[in-house]
Amino acid sequence: MTYSRTIPIEFCHCDPAGIVFYPRYAEMVNHMVENFFLEVVGHGFGPMMAAGQGMPTVALEMAFRKPARLGDRLDWTLVVEHLGRTSARFLVRGEDRVEARTTVVWMDRDFTPSPWPDAMRQTLEAHHA
Amino acid sequence: MTYSRTIPIEFCHCDPAGIVFYPRYAEMVNHMVENFFLEVVGHGFGPMMAAGQGMPTVALEMAFRKPARLGDRLDWTLVVEHLGRTSARFLVRGEDRVEARTTVVWMDRDFTPSPWPDAMRQTLEAHHA
Amino acid sequence: MTYSRTIPIEFCHCDPAGIVFYPRYAEMVNHMVENFFLEVVGHGFGPMMAAGQGMPTVALEMAFRKPARLGDRLDWTLVVEHLGRTSARFLVRGEDRVEARTTVVWMDRDFTPSPWPDAMRQTLEAHHA
Amino acid sequence: MTYSRTIPIEFCHCDPAGIVFYPRYAEMVNHMVENFFLEVVGHGFGPMMAAGQGMPTVALEMAFRKPARLGDRLDWTLVVEHLGRTSARFLVRGEDRVEARTTVVWMDRDFTPSPWPDAMRQTLEAHHA
Repeated sequence: MTYSRTIPIEFCHCDPAGIVFYPRYAEMVNHMVENFFLEVVGHGFGPMMAAGQGMPTVALEMAFRKPARLGDRLDWTLVVEHLGRTSARFLVRGEDRVEARTTVVWMDRDFTPSPWPDAMRQTLEAHHA
Repeated sequence: MTYSRTIPIEFCHCDPAGIVFYPRYAEMVNHMVENFFLEVVGHGFGPMMAAGQGMPTVALEMAFRKPARLGDRLDWTLVVEHLGRTSARFLVRGEDRVEARTTVVWMDRDFTPSPWPDAMRQTLEAHHA
Repeated sequence: MTYSRTIPIEFCHCDPAGIVFYPRYAEMVNHMVENFFLEVVGHGFGPMMAAGQGMPTVALEMAFRKPARLGDRLDWTLVVEHLGRTSARFLVRGEDRVEARTTVVWMDRDFTPSPWPDAMRQTLEAHHA
Repeated sequence: MTYSRTIPIEFCHCDPAGIVFYPRYAEMVNHMVENFFLEVVGHGFGPMMAAGQGMPTVALEMAFRKPARLGDRLDWTLVVEHLGRTSARFLVRGEDRVEARTTVVWMDRDFTPSPWPDAMRQTLEAHHA
């Protein structure tokens, strides 16, 4: 399964060249992961933190293939590209403009890397590409 | 008439105290004005700029009444509080958390303050509070 | 006394019109207040939070008088415009481009508004304009 | 030669976990490249754009090795890791916290990839690691 969302390119995203400023793409990648966990995995970042859990990003790779402009509405997709015992790498794409790989680690109460809980793992596996 | 949108409070908006970092509210205010013009007034910021037009913000006042937290979904509203010949002041509210007044000036092709075109003025008047 | 800093206008600050995107000015105002407290008042925001103290911003007014452009180096100044028992309003200016008033409240350990500690009050009074 | 700058970690950079929000690292990487070009290569991004030139980022890889916290002052370094005919890859490091590789392409007046002008190439070669 693929998780998808549309992100409109707004004024705040764009640089003096009139295209998306690439650090804003990093925010969009985070937005995709955050909402995938909120809507699909069933773990919002707020309750996660309140429970002493966390999911830090340890690596991010982005390729900017074509510029996106103010007014574009980009369809984004997210799949799990690699699922480790305590980590996951997501492939997050914004059409033919940007392709990102982001790796997170699951941290449980003692804030050390911990195996994915079963229910989370099943959802992540269902989105394995 | 009142223009309204819901903005979810996401990780990117929040500061080390776990509440919205107030410069992010300024982005939300801009988002409200930008989408009001795109969806209701019928002037996206992209085509505006391509036509040599613009609508710079000349003043912004914000009162932060109660904190908003990660996971909150804030219902925002926008009305026209004052309509001048070449300017407009919007009252933009995010529930009981934040109240903003933002003043813009309409700039036409020579990039000088210009009277609102009739169609725009009518829409703005319809949203006068 | 006036506290001052120079802020170079960089690519990340600028919008498709090639001028500073005004929510970035709100970040600059916060930067001025934060560094005034770090360098002059002697209270970094990190130690403040670690001590269960805080200084939320309750109001911000900004007037954008002239655009600032990529490559400009703006000289900013900060003075205390009003000093209350538990609050302070700062006047923060970026040359002839932007003028901001920002109001903060001092919160002590129970995270309720508290009178400024004597040492802080003295420093704030010394910067009263 | 290595280009270096210190970046203080401020309130605006930090997330609800009290550490740098990783999209802000992408801004810091851009800040390093931008200031290297301004101060060392002698090409500010403003004059570049005014001359119809540009230097889009086509790829960014970041590894987040250890968290940086509010109040830290990170020493950053930049070297040229690979110098192509029309492109360059920079290795940009923030101490032992973050390691980034960012690839840019030189675009001349027709906004197509163009060979680095001689003077720029010499400076880039002098910073080849």
